[in-house]
Amino acid sequence: MNQMMTAAPKAKRVPVAMNGVDTPTLIATIKAVGGQPELAKFQFRATSRWVSGTRSESVMHGFYGAGGEHRHMAPYNADADHPTVLCGADTAPTPVEWLLHALASCITAGIGNIAAARGIKLNKVESTVEGDIDLRGILGLSEEVRNGYEGIRISFAIDGDATPEQLEQIVMQSKARSAVFDVLTNGVPVSLSVKTPASA
Amino acid sequence: MNQMMTAAPKAKRVPVAMNGVDTPTLIATIKAVGGQPELAKFQFRATSRWVSGTRSESVMHGFYGAGGEHRHMAPYNADADHPTVLCGADTAPTPVEWLLHALASCITAGIGNIAAARGIKLNKVESTVEGDIDLRGILGLSEEVRNGYEGIRISFAIDGDATPEQLEQIVMQSKARSAVFDVLTNGVPVSLSVKTPASA
Repeated sequence: MNQMMTAAPKAKRVPVAMNGVDTPTLIATIKAVGGQPELAKFQFRATSRWVSGTRSESVMHGFYGAGGEHRHMAPYNADADHPTVLCGADTAPTPVEWLLHALASCITAGIGNIAAARGIKLNKVESTVEGDIDLRGILGLSEEVRNGYEGIRISFAIDGDATPEQLEQIVMQSKARSAVFDVLTNGVPVSLSVKTPASA
Repeated sequence: MNQMMTAAPKAKRVPVAMNGVDTPTLIATIKAVGGQPELAKFQFRATSRWVSGTRSESVMHGFYGAGGEHRHMAPYNADADHPTVLCGADTAPTPVEWLLHALASCITAGIGNIAAARGIKLNKVESTVEGDIDLRGILGLSEEVRNGYEGIRISFAIDGDATPEQLEQIVMQSKARSAVFDVLTNGVPVSLSVKTPASA
């Protein structure tokens, strides 16, 4: 009976793995967290070290969540640098470009999950992200200009076995539940502390 | 005369390359931008494509700035995925971890530049970043819980040929001029558009 397809608007969908998403496990995980809200508390972490000039290297490995400590499959490394036109060595993307990657990847991951939960097979999801920044802020040349991006635009191209309206709704739902979209548009409190040799 | 060191509080410092920073060129670049504000207009970009499940790949290559188009030394690739505990394949850091890398690398790059501009040789800069997130937001289990981080903490350990106060001031100045710190704490307008096969 559960698998009977009906035209009723709220027919219960039986989750089926698709798009590389183990949909039954995903739905079961969400239900488990709903019953035990403490499982939803996560802490993500990165450690970073200065290499030279404007170059640094980060490692993302351990994190807390679902009631315990975890480690990624491997310690994931990432670099950052400034471009040569800004007197960096351009050995890696700039820090502000990493924000664009975070945004695109967050909404894209949600699209994969949401499409699977809705039983829609995806063929393609691509995006381009642009961020405009006036460097007079960070260069200390103007007090009127902010340090960060003035605006970010992200454009998705999506194709799958669904109507254009259904595909667009998947993207909009992913945006509505995106952690990175929320942080970038609404901001987040950031506290900073410093240890020097004398204070260590 | 220019190179004469004096005890005057505002003695002009002659920029010297250090910390891997070409300080004279950096100072000259800032002066050039001050005289031609249109050089300060930059646009950074990423393109991203969905791979499978919650995994995606981005490329960061071209960008606009200093009055023209540029390309990084190479097209820089980056992946993202969800961890297995969230039903991802854990092939890469999560999107929200990339935000932490962006923050640490931005403030660290600034520390390199500012220390060089102040004539202070750095020995070590390390940081740890933590972000707390309650996943009931993105899982749609609570309307009271936000999707993104509730808070981020970053802690720097810095050592160099200067007093603890001078070292701490470098970190605080970098924070005050950090593009990523600004975006994360103050937010930025993000617009999103969708192309479907019918609208393409």
